[in-house]
Amino acid sequence: MSKLVKSLREAIQLCGLKDGMRISFHHHLRNGDHVLNMVMEEVSDMGYRDLTVNASSVFDIHAPLVGHIKNKVVTGLEVNYMGGAVGREISSGIMEKPVDFRSHGGRPSHIESGITPIDIAFIAAPSSDNMGNCSGKYGKSACGSLGYAFADAMNAKKVVIITDNLVDYPLDDFSISETYVDYVVCVDKIGDPTGIVSGTTKITRDPVGLMMASYATKVIQHSGLLKDGFSFQTGAGGASLAVAKYLKEIMLKENIKGSFGMGGITGYLVDMLEEGCFQSLMDVQCFDLRAVKSIRENPRHREVTASHYASPTAKSAIVDSLDAVILGATQIDTDFNVNVHTDSNGYIMGGSGGHSDTAAGAKLTMIVAPLTRARLSIVVDKVLCVSTPGNTVDVLVTQRGIAVNPLRKDLEQRLKDAGLPVTDIHDLKKLAEGITGVPKKITLGNRAVANVIYRDGKIIDTIKNTLK
Amino acid sequence: MSKLVKSLREAIQLCGLKDGMRISFHHHLRNGDHVLNMVMEEVSDMGYRDLTVNASSVFDIHAPLVGHIKNKVVTGLEVNYMGGAVGREISSGIMEKPVDFRSHGGRPSHIESGITPIDIAFIAAPSSDNMGNCSGKYGKSACGSLGYAFADAMNAKKVVIITDNLVDYPLDDFSISETYVDYVVCVDKIGDPTGIVSGTTKITRDPVGLMMASYATKVIQHSGLLKDGFSFQTGAGGASLAVAKYLKEIMLKENIKGSFGMGGITGYLVDMLEEGCFQSLMDVQCFDLRAVKSIRENPRHREVTASHYASPTAKSAIVDSLDAVILGATQIDTDFNVNVHTDSNGYIMGGSGGHSDTAAGAKLTMIVAPLTRARLSIVVDKVLCVSTPGNTVDVLVTQRGIAVNPLRKDLEQRLKDAGLPVTDIHDLKKLAEGITGVPKKITLGNRAVANVIYRDGKIIDTIKNTLK
Repeated sequence: MSKLVKSLREAIQLCGLKDGMRISFHHHLRNGDHVLNMVMEEVSDMGYRDLTVNASSVFDIHAPLVGHIKNKVVTGLEVNYMGGAVGREISSGIMEKPVDFRSHGGRPSHIESGITPIDIAFIAAPSSDNMGNCSGKYGKSACGSLGYAFADAMNAKKVVIITDNLVDYPLDDFSISETYVDYVVCVDKIGDPTGIVSGTTKITRDPVGLMMASYATKVIQHSGLLKDGFSFQTGAGGASLAVAKYLKEIMLKENIKGSFGMGGITGYLVDMLEEGCFQSLMDVQCFDLRAVKSIRENPRHREVTASHYASPTAKSAIVDSLDAVILGATQIDTDFNVNVHTDSNGYIMGGSGGHSDTAAGAKLTMIVAPLTRARLSIVVDKVLCVSTPGNTVDVLVTQRGIAVNPLRKDLEQRLKDAGLPVTDIHDLKKLAEGITGVPKKITLGNRAVANVIYRDGKIIDTIKNTLK
Repeated sequence: MSKLVKSLREAIQLCGLKDGMRISFHHHLRNGDHVLNMVMEEVSDMGYRDLTVNASSVFDIHAPLVGHIKNKVVTGLEVNYMGGAVGREISSGIMEKPVDFRSHGGRPSHIESGITPIDIAFIAAPSSDNMGNCSGKYGKSACGSLGYAFADAMNAKKVVIITDNLVDYPLDDFSISETYVDYVVCVDKIGDPTGIVSGTTKITRDPVGLMMASYATKVIQHSGLLKDGFSFQTGAGGASLAVAKYLKEIMLKENIKGSFGMGGITGYLVDMLEEGCFQSLMDVQCFDLRAVKSIRENPRHREVTASHYASPTAKSAIVDSLDAVILGATQIDTDFNVNVHTDSNGYIMGGSGGHSDTAAGAKLTMIVAPLTRARLSIVVDKVLCVSTPGNTVDVLVTQRGIAVNPLRKDLEQRLKDAGLPVTDIHDLKKLAEGITGVPKKITLGNRAVANVIYRDGKIIDTIKNTLK
């Protein structure tokens, strides 16, 4: 018995794909992923129409999706994040039905509950055996964690593993087990390693970034949370990494033994693990080569499913136990609502990912962003898109000052007592506009091109088409 | 946020237990388990009635169940195995409704499909954090794998973790994740370590056992399966362990690199892993201390769920890829049907466990048993209970000869060619009866005290009450 089939086409035929079905993909191969394009090209060649693509994220490498949308091969799109290449086209209105944006926790929740039932999951796996026990840790296309793919594997009616590294049965260090897998396809190459993971990302050298990082670190330090048992998530941007570095120095100096680092994992968090700042890393996605090596070799560095990471309907998720998270923003308004879906002109170029999940769970949710970007204030009266509601955001850190959500008077007092430059968010907006001028109002169209579905399942905002 | 509650009683109340519900238990603490008794005593004290207990296995330590059955606290019982202490009472007819016996693969299949929906799963966990990430590998009551408990955790409406070793969040090397857990209860002691795992079991010194083991080893050797990639399951009995030892010697001498050892794992299989006979161990249950240490420390020794081990409705299970399995029998009939549920007098003292699952999956299913036991022939005209159907059994090995199922003419020829003492199963029966005399017919009652539900979901046999 073997589940190996000769070609992707054969797997698609055996799965009984039909027009109108929902097919799914994960994004662990990031901007190096060949699998989504490979499958969509095949189903397009086979003449299928009216498919819904549910992909945990869509990157710029997935630009061929635009053609499939225009040809009506794809008429529904559900993602947690969308890069600018596809995003710009969606914003311009190429699709009749609005895109549904979810969060990294909301997506598996809706798959598990049957709100978005997956007909066929196509799972890129850097290693698999002939029965479908598969892993992201090994092989030339290694990506580390396969966290986002579990909900697809465990709930899709049919599951196809696509690998470029077929190993002897059993792949004992499996992430997804054969119990969920229908077919295995071996191809030459599932992705481009240079796009799957980056090398070690450099910490910012930009003085503005370093200033923000320094303030952010001090906010954590004086929040009351930085003590034994401290848990932390940060991003992969230059300033976020600088916070990790600064935090590490403080934790080592003060001998603080944290509990866990979480999220998309970088080499900086691996450093913190190895140097004893954390007991463990809970990893839903690896961002760089060091993280991939670490999850493969260090038993304290654990793969977790997207549901375990952040599902709002799991009996609990790790975000519920998180102390501090550092997040970005393209815009934040004076009610602390954050936009990470569109740029300041309203073009889609992002998405929540785990933004709104971690914000809802963490005891300290900090937005770290420069006061101005591309000659526009980051602080606005009203964000073009509410990705993360203001009542889950505690503090905004800019290089020119720190604004605390009025809901967190306790925190504001702590930061003031520590001598940090705490200011009102309205004052930050004025300060920015003093530099950039008052931005002219963005006029968008009347058509909904995307819905932002918050982790509670409700539409929190609707993104309108841009006008050329 | 924490899921810790102060007492078992509080957890039961919070879960909303009601008369008539189905509650479940796993048996990894084996004959040292305190949890099933602890919970049943509590629910009995609380006045509940008419509960169905679904336990992967019931051991002699669970004898207090008899009282709960007599008091109608328990009116339904579903198990994969039942030791003689409870079994004798069931056989005598203390329960109105027949016990449902399933297999280790059939049980999770029926839980997952909703045929036996679990209202509350009580999961004994040798370590857990306050959110319910738990493991069997650590703690004073360590039992290793928690393989049988996954289906319960993943599908029960409410899940209670009962631990005697509360660890800091997160228990990163979790088996069952917090996503499935409602409450955590910390008690003094979940079990008695001496009953949970044995020390290293000794290989038999009995010449009959050694003769059987020698024949069994030769059957494998000449089956055509013993080559690179070979996979194997054996039990924990003295003769089974001797086969493991003999096989190891052959594999090392002939430099055969097997793929995996599976099942309930003993130190003998750990030896085979460590000495390179297998690439990995797939472990649904640890039988001894060496296995527990190995699963904790050796990344090639993997915990697998009961579904992954043996579910007939999983998209595949490891049994489907198994080469050879060695199994026991209390009786085998001339059609090769095997009884492991009752003794020769019809008293319940066992159950399928993984018997029928591995027999269905393995390329070579071998029953190893002495020709006579307690002055009765092991070979009979018709087994008192069909646990495993004869068409899934390939060969019977006794100390006095080897009988091959007529369905396996190919195998019979191979063994004859190798000079092994191949004989007809009817001749083995005659040989035994020449020693023991023809057994007198067992007369059983007319009441069904248990149904044997085969892995396809159908009742394969019914066990009748014994007559005093």
